[in-house]
Amino acid sequence: MSELRIFGVTGIGEIHPRDDLAGIIATAVADHHGGLLDGDVVVVTQKIVSKAEGQLVAVDPDDPLSHKALVEAETVRVLRRRGDLIISETKHGFVCANAGIDLSNVELGFAALLPEDSDRSARRIRDAIRARAGVEVAVIVSDTFGRPWRKGLTDVAIGCAGIGAIVDYRGTTDTQGRELQVTEVAIVDELAGAADLVLGKSTGLPVAIVRGVDPAWLRTGNVHDEIVRDPSEDLFR
Amino acid sequence: MSELRIFGVTGIGEIHPRDDLAGIIATAVADHHGGLLDGDVVVVTQKIVSKAEGQLVAVDPDDPLSHKALVEAETVRVLRRRGDLIISETKHGFVCANAGIDLSNVELGFAALLPEDSDRSARRIRDAIRARAGVEVAVIVSDTFGRPWRKGLTDVAIGCAGIGAIVDYRGTTDTQGRELQVTEVAIVDELAGAADLVLGKSTGLPVAIVRGVDPAWLRTGNVHDEIVRDPSEDLFR
Repeated sequence: MSELRIFGVTGIGEIHPRDDLAGIIATAVADHHGGLLDGDVVVVTQKIVSKAEGQLVAVDPDDPLSHKALVEAETVRVLRRRGDLIISETKHGFVCANAGIDLSNVELGFAALLPEDSDRSARRIRDAIRARAGVEVAVIVSDTFGRPWRKGLTDVAIGCAGIGAIVDYRGTTDTQGRELQVTEVAIVDELAGAADLVLGKSTGLPVAIVRGVDPAWLRTGNVHDEIVRDPSEDLFR
Repeated sequence: MSELRIFGVTGIGEIHPRDDLAGIIATAVADHHGGLLDGDVVVVTQKIVSKAEGQLVAVDPDDPLSHKALVEAETVRVLRRRGDLIISETKHGFVCANAGIDLSNVELGFAALLPEDSDRSARRIRDAIRARAGVEVAVIVSDTFGRPWRKGLTDVAIGCAGIGAIVDYRGTTDTQGRELQVTEVAIVDELAGAADLVLGKSTGLPVAIVRGVDPAWLRTGNVHDEIVRDPSEDLFR
């Protein structure tokens, strides 16, 4: 019987620019949860990746326009605008509210931008965890996005390493022996959402471990090439 | 430490119209997994709910047009059309490919429509599990949808009972004591996606159990009122 276990990692304090995020995560899991295992999926929320990478920009907390100018600067294409809300495409190709910039859980007077390249961030964390703890884990960098047609937000992957972003069931057959029509599942997005269930938005826990995923999923992969849809192939841009 | 366990339920055979789905699920979990517990979230994939409810329509397997006519009949609004693919709004308010109709894992010569009212389906399964097994579970009916901007499919909730579809963090504060901007999380969609990680598309397992969710989430809830966005409030319709 395949079974997943998902738990939030306790003992990770406030993160600052140039902090050794991989070391901090590996130590916290060792101290509080018995240590990382080969094949674990480490889901790291975007905010602490941005902080560790110094992706912080000063904003005037009393001037809403300074935050707004930042959103415009990070936007390559505005899809919709209503009141204060801008749905935009970022330079990374993500479509989200306010170019992925928000102010919560960041020191007053600062805003956190998305990492420059979240797939690279995930690779670096994965490599550093291997170096420090001697384990082969997968890493997902997650962020919280809205979506059209459905209310509420869900966490999705903005970067990954050591795991395929998509599992392709093409060529496999259903229980009736017919070739499957539904073929490409975005497992990194389902994993990011699953991790959010134990992190929540107000616990302050920024990292979750998903243990027990199918070993066949653990391969080279990245969000940019596998998940981000090119505007030319997109029916809604 | 809060921890989730997620496992697929073995021992559920082919489902037919008028089958006692709740009894079949409760028995399979009792026989193979030690039984259902109060607070378990039972995620049931749409296909077997539609089959048990007799939402099957004959199609000519040699005539692709008979399937297509069905899609048109179940559609209240076409959002996009490209080649064979129609992205449409169903009478339930869901926006998805081909009005949620697909042919995989259905007997040759038949197509499965979405349940008439998936929230009602979830309530009936929940009530019947309480009656048969004496446990208070939450039930989510899940289906596999695509999305704009991101490639790959994920499982989302099309119905729920005994759990809020959305958790609202409005009024709670972040680690800096500031009121949270991200406030409404679609936990039933994150749970549906998490369940898909142990079901996959070709295992044939149609039900998963998520154990260990926050008891505060277990309240009256439904997808139609909480998740389905009214077209008038939607920036992308």
